[in-house]
Amino acid sequence: MAAAVLVANGESAAVKTPSTGRLAAVYSEVQNSRLDHPLPLPSVLKNSFKIVDGPPSSAAGNPDEIAKLFPCVFGQPSANLVPGDSIDNSSGRGLKIGVVLSGGQAPGGHNVISGIFDYLQDRCKGSTLYGFRGGPAGIMKCKYVVLTPEYIYPYRNQISLSVEADRSCIIPFQFKQAEETAVKLDLDGLVVIGGDDSNTNACLLAENFRSKNLKTSVIGCPKTIDGDLKCKEVPTSFGFDTACKIVFLGKTAIRDSIPKEIRYFHFGSSILPISWVSPFREIYAEMIGNVMVDARSTGKYYHFVRLMGRAASHITLECALQTHPNITLIGEEVAAKKLTLKNVTDYIADVICKRAELGFNYGVILIPEGLIDFIPEVQQLIAELNEILAHEVVDEAGVWKQKLSPQCLELFDFLPPAIQDQLMLERDPHGNVQVAKIETEKMLIQMVETELEVRKQVSAYKGQFKGQSHFFGYEGRCGLPSNFDSTYCYALGYTAGALLQSGKTGLISSVGNLAAPVAEWTVGGTALTSLMDVERRHGKFKPVIKKAMVELEGGKISMLTRSISLYILYRKGAPFKKFASLREEWALKNRYLNPGPIQFVGPASDNVNHTLLLELGAQV
Amino acid sequence: MAAAVLVANGESAAVKTPSTGRLAAVYSEVQNSRLDHPLPLPSVLKNSFKIVDGPPSSAAGNPDEIAKLFPCVFGQPSANLVPGDSIDNSSGRGLKIGVVLSGGQAPGGHNVISGIFDYLQDRCKGSTLYGFRGGPAGIMKCKYVVLTPEYIYPYRNQISLSVEADRSCIIPFQFKQAEETAVKLDLDGLVVIGGDDSNTNACLLAENFRSKNLKTSVIGCPKTIDGDLKCKEVPTSFGFDTACKIVFLGKTAIRDSIPKEIRYFHFGSSILPISWVSPFREIYAEMIGNVMVDARSTGKYYHFVRLMGRAASHITLECALQTHPNITLIGEEVAAKKLTLKNVTDYIADVICKRAELGFNYGVILIPEGLIDFIPEVQQLIAELNEILAHEVVDEAGVWKQKLSPQCLELFDFLPPAIQDQLMLERDPHGNVQVAKIETEKMLIQMVETELEVRKQVSAYKGQFKGQSHFFGYEGRCGLPSNFDSTYCYALGYTAGALLQSGKTGLISSVGNLAAPVAEWTVGGTALTSLMDVERRHGKFKPVIKKAMVELEGGKISMLTRSISLYILYRKGAPFKKFASLREEWALKNRYLNPGPIQFVGPASDNVNHTLLLELGAQV
Repeated sequence: MAAAVLVANGESAAVKTPSTGRLAAVYSEVQNSRLDHPLPLPSVLKNSFKIVDGPPSSAAGNPDEIAKLFPCVFGQPSANLVPGDSIDNSSGRGLKIGVVLSGGQAPGGHNVISGIFDYLQDRCKGSTLYGFRGGPAGIMKCKYVVLTPEYIYPYRNQISLSVEADRSCIIPFQFKQAEETAVKLDLDGLVVIGGDDSNTNACLLAENFRSKNLKTSVIGCPKTIDGDLKCKEVPTSFGFDTACKIVFLGKTAIRDSIPKEIRYFHFGSSILPISWVSPFREIYAEMIGNVMVDARSTGKYYHFVRLMGRAASHITLECALQTHPNITLIGEEVAAKKLTLKNVTDYIADVICKRAELGFNYGVILIPEGLIDFIPEVQQLIAELNEILAHEVVDEAGVWKQKLSPQCLELFDFLPPAIQDQLMLERDPHGNVQVAKIETEKMLIQMVETELEVRKQVSAYKGQFKGQSHFFGYEGRCGLPSNFDSTYCYALGYTAGALLQSGKTGLISSVGNLAAPVAEWTVGGTALTSLMDVERRHGKFKPVIKKAMVELEGGKISMLTRSISLYILYRKGAPFKKFASLREEWALKNRYLNPGPIQFVGPASDNVNHTLLLELGAQV
Repeated sequence: MAAAVLVANGESAAVKTPSTGRLAAVYSEVQNSRLDHPLPLPSVLKNSFKIVDGPPSSAAGNPDEIAKLFPCVFGQPSANLVPGDSIDNSSGRGLKIGVVLSGGQAPGGHNVISGIFDYLQDRCKGSTLYGFRGGPAGIMKCKYVVLTPEYIYPYRNQISLSVEADRSCIIPFQFKQAEETAVKLDLDGLVVIGGDDSNTNACLLAENFRSKNLKTSVIGCPKTIDGDLKCKEVPTSFGFDTACKIVFLGKTAIRDSIPKEIRYFHFGSSILPISWVSPFREIYAEMIGNVMVDARSTGKYYHFVRLMGRAASHITLECALQTHPNITLIGEEVAAKKLTLKNVTDYIADVICKRAELGFNYGVILIPEGLIDFIPEVQQLIAELNEILAHEVVDEAGVWKQKLSPQCLELFDFLPPAIQDQLMLERDPHGNVQVAKIETEKMLIQMVETELEVRKQVSAYKGQFKGQSHFFGYEGRCGLPSNFDSTYCYALGYTAGALLQSGKTGLISSVGNLAAPVAEWTVGGTALTSLMDVERRHGKFKPVIKKAMVELEGGKISMLTRSISLYILYRKGAPFKKFASLREEWALKNRYLNPGPIQFVGPASDNVNHTLLLELGAQV
């Protein structure tokens, strides 16, 4: 039988196994070398530990509504693992645990599974770990494999094989079917590895199981490929709960930088868990670095690079911090300043003109995939076009355009013909414009070209402009996880095992103090309801963990967590602030940085990403 | 003063320097770590050596014409460096040497310069090395920098900053101006680092200087980013000359596999120097590997990946050997089999149908950038379109189409509308269709989609087809050179220094035996004229080093080089044969291999590319 863990299509991956050696090795030398890369555990997980509960938790918003939606699990304290010896495994009974990878691929997913598995092996003899196949659907259909060392080993430190982030995978669980599976397999616990929607569902499932008096606990594990898992506004007083939340989110103490005056205050802002973005970031940053060398040495192209990350611009910001491009567009800033496409075009053209005066007719420009979603006038135009295309005849002569509002007509005429065509032609099954398919980088090249032509006429620009477009997408999503990600994910899984053994439910596995050596990382669990707010949909309140956007406003937040004597310092907006403070220099001077390929051994092999370090107050 | 070597636009790169530390470090951690990566030399270069000449050389074709074009340098013996002590530097006089990077960027270019520099420092005290700026134009304009350790150091093992492969940079030198520069700087020698055209020009320059009795020698260094430097048909008897040629081209002895019967024979085929392609190959292979993981785990997309390399499909073949995609199109094979676009479409559709029956509705397909240049019917269509567009009115109703020949009309109607538009709209300044701008990967997706729809109608296909297009271009061209490339290029430069000191001219620096440990590499120089053939242009013979294409036919070639007792074994066509023998398996089974990112330390850090190893008879 071949080793296959949670592969979407049920297909087997033939890889070498430690014990049998039966299977043909289809791993490259680098992949093979990763298999035995050691995974150190935080000290607290290496010895006996106990779980200390914090004070009751609230919600990220509308706690009353969240409390109504989650009567059983709302308000749970966060759990913190500290040295001690209180976990009861005296019964000697092993646990039956299920695990599922939900949503899009993220490097490191299988290390979470390895962590759970190893926890059960180390601390909870006689346990069984079921891997559900094909994402959450595997739970409903009770489609699983029993995970063994032979199954697990080939995926250590390898690329996560998960199911596509298909909406069908992450809409609410079919609770009835999930219950049947839980009962059938006699599950003590279930670990859901996923993003905001998946963790919301994990919490709904925890609530459901608890309300039915099922013994099955549910623990979430955070997975976000573009760093947009969000925990919005914590309106409670500061306390252990919040601290753990921050710990979970990867914003923990840099003890050397504790402000002398320790003040207690409310933690009134969203925080970002930048964690699993690293292979994205590193592969994209490597490619951007290469394009920069090309741009500079060739000396005659402007490279417009569109980067994955539609809802938020975290990846673009992180890549900018790593590579220092001449221009970086941050969607959140474009939205906050209510910029128009013309504004964006002018901004780019201005930099190009200034660079031309300095003799530089080349450059690198980073664009987030979701840019046009952040431009209000474009949204308005698309809404009007959808309406017109649904009800009107689109005539060659363009009479239909009279249906557009004047400002939308002006914008439409401002767009390059190819983009006009894309807006008119590309429809999704519901007849809507497929915004994601619009090649923003090509659109901007054409618009900038037109603008520069105009400036040339009035001698405001004397350079030569040639644009080259790039889209970095899928090729970055499935890279080998870095050393940091491998270790971090393993700790998340190991912690999830501990939380399940202690009977916790409705928590999300939380590993913090990430800027410190691994031994000093903190581990615990945070109430999933505490990350939630509600949205009103179809007249009903729906719980959501909202996506985190790039924070534009700065501010220091520091706090003392009483129960674990850990200081928390989080620099809100620090990544954007750093970027904003340097972008003028990057625009005109050439401060390009080429990070090179991800290294697993030697220099830079244990790097943590810039966004996280900046938020932790480190100098990068 | 900032460190700047041969940067196209004359701009400075601020980097850390070993002696002064004055400049801000703008290198990433990985880049910095590369600076001090050791560069081992072949043993022969570490001790005293002498140069042993082989027998007179001929040309790759039309030796009589080549002899007429190069009366001074034609027929020169190849030079082989062997242990000994005969190079005369008793005069104690340093040399004045110029160096230029010509043509497109290639990783490792600056290591050639480091090699020359270190040779002069080590073996030829008091020498001066001039780096010409902006490519060959720098020679004409006498625009140079004097290279010092401070200048050189920051570029060791870094990315080559050269000028764009603009035709203007590699068309024949202005000999008069080059002479003036050689005289003004009192140059003893000039090293031209470049591809086929640049080396042809280097030879013309060598001839010119020799004919004018200038003392300036010219040595070429091979640089090819897509492995298409070619040495066509050597019609002379086998001998030392050919052997060295093979040594230069990286096809040298694997002594363990010498056939027992040593036979002398003619070496009647072209050979490929796969050398500097590695960062391309490795970055592309890494990205393809990631796309494969994505394809497999998502389970619902066919990824059509177009790869750089227009004239020949070496990069595509090498990437296929490294990653095992389901389908790989090799332009040379398409041309040899005279395939039509319909044939290519059917081939892809056939594999997709078979895979659908196996339950696989996903896959990865590699396409060389130059694919359509290899399809005769497309060339014909483009020729007819150029003619029509130059002279006819293109009417909306399509009456103009009647001017097309029946077969071209049929092909045109077969093309997707978007490609029809591209063919009709994209013009270069001469009014020709810009074939390079045609997005072959998108074209094939649409054509395959249409074909599959047809098959669906007749129930010959029951799967779901969704195509995703990728183009991997500039982001691969400027990667950090691998350990192999760094060492290889350094040896090329060091050898060039030795050849110049011994007064050689019109040779190309040649490093061989590359599958052996570095200590055993062989070094020498090969007569540039021996690589040449002639083409007739505008009624005149023009010397050319032709581009090497992927060899489709196999065959072993082994030979004994008398003067250095080195056996040469070269397996012509071995890379394609290996690919051809496995592609059916790769098509239907999933043998994807993810090479991971280039590693500089630890496992896989000293790998050599598969194409080269296969040609040398190694198992990969």
